[in-house]
Amino acid sequence: MGEWIGRGRKARRAYGFDEIAIVPGALTINPDEVDSSWELGGKRYEIPIIAAAMDGVVDPNFAILMGKLGGLAILNLEGVWMRYDDPTDILKEIAQATPERATELVQMLYLPPVREDLIARRISEIRAAGVSPIVSAIPQKAERCAAIAEEAGCEVFVVQSTVSTVRHIASAYKTLDLEHLIKGTKMKVMIGNCVSYETALELMECKPAAVIIGIGPGAACTSRGVLGIGVPQVTATVDGAAARDKFYTRTGVYVPIITDGGMNVGGDICKAFASGADAVIVGSAFAKAEEAPGGGFHWGMATPHANLPRGTRIRVGTSGTLEEILYGPAHLDDGSQNLIGALRTCMGSVGAQTIRELQRVEVCIAPAIKTEGKLFQKAQRIGMGK
Amino acid sequence: MGEWIGRGRKARRAYGFDEIAIVPGALTINPDEVDSSWELGGKRYEIPIIAAAMDGVVDPNFAILMGKLGGLAILNLEGVWMRYDDPTDILKEIAQATPERATELVQMLYLPPVREDLIARRISEIRAAGVSPIVSAIPQKAERCAAIAEEAGCEVFVVQSTVSTVRHIASAYKTLDLEHLIKGTKMKVMIGNCVSYETALELMECKPAAVIIGIGPGAACTSRGVLGIGVPQVTATVDGAAARDKFYTRTGVYVPIITDGGMNVGGDICKAFASGADAVIVGSAFAKAEEAPGGGFHWGMATPHANLPRGTRIRVGTSGTLEEILYGPAHLDDGSQNLIGALRTCMGSVGAQTIRELQRVEVCIAPAIKTEGKLFQKAQRIGMGK
Amino acid sequence: MGEWIGRGRKARRAYGFDEIAIVPGALTINPDEVDSSWELGGKRYEIPIIAAAMDGVVDPNFAILMGKLGGLAILNLEGVWMRYDDPTDILKEIAQATPERATELVQMLYLPPVREDLIARRISEIRAAGVSPIVSAIPQKAERCAAIAEEAGCEVFVVQSTVSTVRHIASAYKTLDLEHLIKGTKMKVMIGNCVSYETALELMECKPAAVIIGIGPGAACTSRGVLGIGVPQVTATVDGAAARDKFYTRTGVYVPIITDGGMNVGGDICKAFASGADAVIVGSAFAKAEEAPGGGFHWGMATPHANLPRGTRIRVGTSGTLEEILYGPAHLDDGSQNLIGALRTCMGSVGAQTIRELQRVEVCIAPAIKTEGKLFQKAQRIGMGK
Amino acid sequence: MGEWIGRGRKARRAYGFDEIAIVPGALTINPDEVDSSWELGGKRYEIPIIAAAMDGVVDPNFAILMGKLGGLAILNLEGVWMRYDDPTDILKEIAQATPERATELVQMLYLPPVREDLIARRISEIRAAGVSPIVSAIPQKAERCAAIAEEAGCEVFVVQSTVSTVRHIASAYKTLDLEHLIKGTKMKVMIGNCVSYETALELMECKPAAVIIGIGPGAACTSRGVLGIGVPQVTATVDGAAARDKFYTRTGVYVPIITDGGMNVGGDICKAFASGADAVIVGSAFAKAEEAPGGGFHWGMATPHANLPRGTRIRVGTSGTLEEILYGPAHLDDGSQNLIGALRTCMGSVGAQTIRELQRVEVCIAPAIKTEGKLFQKAQRIGMGK
Repeated sequence: MGEWIGRGRKARRAYGFDEIAIVPGALTINPDEVDSSWELGGKRYEIPIIAAAMDGVVDPNFAILMGKLGGLAILNLEGVWMRYDDPTDILKEIAQATPERATELVQMLYLPPVREDLIARRISEIRAAGVSPIVSAIPQKAERCAAIAEEAGCEVFVVQSTVSTVRHIASAYKTLDLEHLIKGTKMKVMIGNCVSYETALELMECKPAAVIIGIGPGAACTSRGVLGIGVPQVTATVDGAAARDKFYTRTGVYVPIITDGGMNVGGDICKAFASGADAVIVGSAFAKAEEAPGGGFHWGMATPHANLPRGTRIRVGTSGTLEEILYGPAHLDDGSQNLIGALRTCMGSVGAQTIRELQRVEVCIAPAIKTEGKLFQKAQRIGMGK
Repeated sequence: MGEWIGRGRKARRAYGFDEIAIVPGALTINPDEVDSSWELGGKRYEIPIIAAAMDGVVDPNFAILMGKLGGLAILNLEGVWMRYDDPTDILKEIAQATPERATELVQMLYLPPVREDLIARRISEIRAAGVSPIVSAIPQKAERCAAIAEEAGCEVFVVQSTVSTVRHIASAYKTLDLEHLIKGTKMKVMIGNCVSYETALELMECKPAAVIIGIGPGAACTSRGVLGIGVPQVTATVDGAAARDKFYTRTGVYVPIITDGGMNVGGDICKAFASGADAVIVGSAFAKAEEAPGGGFHWGMATPHANLPRGTRIRVGTSGTLEEILYGPAHLDDGSQNLIGALRTCMGSVGAQTIRELQRVEVCIAPAIKTEGKLFQKAQRIGMGK
Repeated sequence: MGEWIGRGRKARRAYGFDEIAIVPGALTINPDEVDSSWELGGKRYEIPIIAAAMDGVVDPNFAILMGKLGGLAILNLEGVWMRYDDPTDILKEIAQATPERATELVQMLYLPPVREDLIARRISEIRAAGVSPIVSAIPQKAERCAAIAEEAGCEVFVVQSTVSTVRHIASAYKTLDLEHLIKGTKMKVMIGNCVSYETALELMECKPAAVIIGIGPGAACTSRGVLGIGVPQVTATVDGAAARDKFYTRTGVYVPIITDGGMNVGGDICKAFASGADAVIVGSAFAKAEEAPGGGFHWGMATPHANLPRGTRIRVGTSGTLEEILYGPAHLDDGSQNLIGALRTCMGSVGAQTIRELQRVEVCIAPAIKTEGKLFQKAQRIGMGK
Repeated sequence: MGEWIGRGRKARRAYGFDEIAIVPGALTINPDEVDSSWELGGKRYEIPIIAAAMDGVVDPNFAILMGKLGGLAILNLEGVWMRYDDPTDILKEIAQATPERATELVQMLYLPPVREDLIARRISEIRAAGVSPIVSAIPQKAERCAAIAEEAGCEVFVVQSTVSTVRHIASAYKTLDLEHLIKGTKMKVMIGNCVSYETALELMECKPAAVIIGIGPGAACTSRGVLGIGVPQVTATVDGAAARDKFYTRTGVYVPIITDGGMNVGGDICKAFASGADAVIVGSAFAKAEEAPGGGFHWGMATPHANLPRGTRIRVGTSGTLEEILYGPAHLDDGSQNLIGALRTCMGSVGAQTIRELQRVEVCIAPAIKTEGKLFQKAQRIGMGK
């Protein structure tokens, strides 16, 4: 398995969403009669699309709204809501910065330290609205944050970094004992990100509620350019799904995998499920919601890194309400609205009754259609033509 | 057969028109002496290029003109001509809308219900001109529409949806019994669209007059983006042709396959035949005709979908008469005019006496030529340069 | 050999110049000490780069100049110099036409019939300057033109059409008997174009002086778009070279192959030789010469086709004298000048003493470098940036 | 090994940086605790990134600064500092030239001959600042230059040309005896460039301190376009590393390989090491330093070639100090700053303790992400949009 890339060395070809398409077969189902729910730690959720732990996407209000619509949204414990009593003006300032200034400004605005009182306060605000909060922490701070979050009443806790592994070497600080963290809490713990079969299996051994898949593919992420690392998401998801199935066969425990990053339109989300995902984490699609705190802008949580920023603030614009983005009616035909409707229509078109069936549908390798023509049309739309 | 796309999973590489080229061999024929006709349900047609059931392409007048020129044009029974007594102003309004407003406007203008009296009236109008009408209905309405169409004197009836299968699961409504429909009518029934060998075979078991091949490749179609589904047309056509040949070997019945979508220029049409098609359905090439009702615009019939629009209104411009587009003389060198002349010249260049011989000519996998240069030239033409 | 493009059908992957690169090895040679000459019909020519039979490239004056510089230029017997006593104004008119009008204008200006007296006169003009003329005719007129050309003193005669084969079926007109033509003349006859091994072998059986390889790859040619036919030039040349070598092994007769079309820069020319060519025919590179009759414009000889034009008039600009384009000094670094210097430097870099050695050098499949970046730079240059 | 590119001929697929990505595994390391140093001729250097021998990148001052920061910078003995007493105005003139004029101007400004007194003076200037100078000469002048350089106190000497081999055929001049040169000097001699396994092995037999890998991939280099030669850098580096390992196994001597060219961002540099490099030579990234002599411009050393220029003067802009480019803090997120930080973070992310471990990390073949989107964004940035 793999192609020769030089003398004595092979590399595997990995695939991204742009390179595959889902193949309809001999059975179709009425889209209104398919089941697109999924299960996390014994609880069933209607919406398998989770809002990403990014400051331009999720704030306490957005988390509340998402919860009321039947979905999940992750609040980032490294974000501005943990650094400022009221970050509303901060967010506006980021949105108004020129592209040239944006990275430096984000770096500066994330300098104030994270405050533990604010962590507890944000969680309480969400709970007070009747929604179960989900928060994310980086591995170095996971133990401390988990204690605060659990006390504040969190049910789901996310440990997330660009690359997370069970085995981490460091002498300058105490490394996270993931297994210990999970054992010591009643919260369901999601862990990520990772991309390989072996790493996913090692993470599953720690008994997380879910494993997050994805390194380097996101629109607001420049890991591929800055660090050279990353695996295209279709292959990463297929590998993660193989680990999940292997782990299930061996232990009887089903650890769902959540594909995170690189999905821009409904079609990409459908392809992630067809590649084996149980749920997906989406950033930019939700950043376009009227209720998103970024005001039409979106940036990766590695953007503020003081010494080596690895994210871009990108303009996504505002296209409709969160409800329209999730359930329609869509007023755009570009796949950015009515994501659940698109998912269900896809399931109907390929005869998949459930997400688990969608995971096994046939896909083909298919080059992106008419890149040239589409680019040309875009160029016209932004005014390059007359 | 297939490439590994991840651990334990293979996917087949599928090809589109941009990726192949027809290989001339050791025999050539005078283009004036080849035969480009095809047969549908026992009747021979001179032109194997059918105008698509799209409101920007076919109205009753266009259908009449096409019939007089020796070809076929499909009138869509879900279109504006079934919703309005006189949709002329409606079509103008769509053509005049800004790109931003177009999708929403189309959604709104398709809200008035389809009227059965108009269906009958349009069919009669075409018959009155001495042309045999062809109409298309969606599966849910096929039985009712077929009854009206047959009574109104239709000879060819098309059942068409994005993805059509013999087996459809729905409890909310009665599903179409395709075999029953075909048995119960004297009309020739064309059914589609589908893309896989198995599905094509199952559809052929119902004894249609033809099977339509193609999901997701059209210029005005965004199924790939919105739903993630689709198969590039060369592979879909090769698979459909394999099903046709298999069905013929087994039953002695030759069910022609019609490739629908994704052909922009004469070369694409030639490649569809070289991939195995008996006829092709073309939209945007005919939308450029002076006689096309779209006034230089073109939109997919999934565009009006109220909740999940999956088509784009695209500007194609008006480049000549339908007669010029079919038979020349061409005044443009871009392959958009004199489609029959191009087909015949291609047949002569590769030594194919008939469409059936063209179906077996050698093709090679060949990347699109100089994408960069062409894009660059286009950019210059639209005024990006000086 | 080949990839599956669908059920039961394989196609060969063919390669173009943009997809390969020449691999330097363990030997290098001083470029001043390599031999870049080639042999046609027993006569040795210093320059293996022939100017194409296109009206924007070669007129009698250009043919004379090229001959004096040691090279070959083909004058097209279907061109304006055979239709007008003095076509100077005609050529100016073509150069001044707007892009929109160009094809139609070229169609119109080629309507006056070819005059046999002018054929003889042009050949005499070239001979009078002490240069041996080369002219090209289409197969239908080859016998008549050959008689005139031979009488007027031609030594090399080219029979050329988009697709030429030994076997041609036509009842409306008498087909060319190539073998008879060649036997009946003392001129060296070059024949083309073709792309497959079998066709090249069949043509070689007729004992031509050379076989011309190339269908569909040229910059001013739109056969791929209009007719769908063509084979990328690297594969076409490798196949043609295989036919040449096979024919030589079998008969002891070495029929050189000449790669025609698709070479834009020195690097492409070097790659054509590395693919097996004995000589190359180049159009647009010479159309940039100050002495070229097109005045910075260039069009394919299928452009004037009245009913199905298959060529584009493209703007190439004027960049230097023919001598600079052939021998330098180059004032541009884009590979368009000092083509012979580039060829010799390439030969030195890869340790090829002769063209025959260059034909056997290693090549690798290498994607075009930084397409995006280059396109971006071009965009900047034409003024899209500030 | 290889694909068929035509009848009877295979070619190897070669890969570039844009086509691979590094795959994180099951182990991670604190980036502050990895070791990114390398060894050249028994001496250990902290920075494995060398500034290229190009006049827009390295002058005596830049060499001094680089040395003080712990790195290496190569001063070109064919450059303007060897032709002019004070080339400051010359460099300004190049920076101020219009793109159209740049190549010709560079050709003209490099006409004054190289002066031996200036070679010695520049080396002394660098030594006087307490930094060990590195200089590069072309093979034809290597013996004479080496003598001057050694006398002036150089420790490292580079023999560099586009394509360097042990075996060179020339009767017009005396060819370099590389083995003799290396035996006769106490300086450590680096030799290049080359791309194949066999050539690298032959060069290693001459006992150089290092072999430089890379033909044709650089941003300021047009060898691929002008000469058609080149091998994408990932494959070239993998092959070079295979030669190094083979040579080490056979002789016990470890000759480091240095990948030169084509690395634009931190991610590319990381991929070069993951492909097997011991160090890298970088041009355009350093040309962006405030201290770089090119003033935001950059040109290849083949650009001045009088008869066949093969380099482009490209605008890279000025983005920060050399220290920021090497060590951060980065103010841009595009991978052009904090190269050492990026390398160390990559090493941590993939669990590589040393460069030698990074050489063996898994890579996958991964197409460039979202070319279309990125081009689109770039287009917007340069003002094509509103």
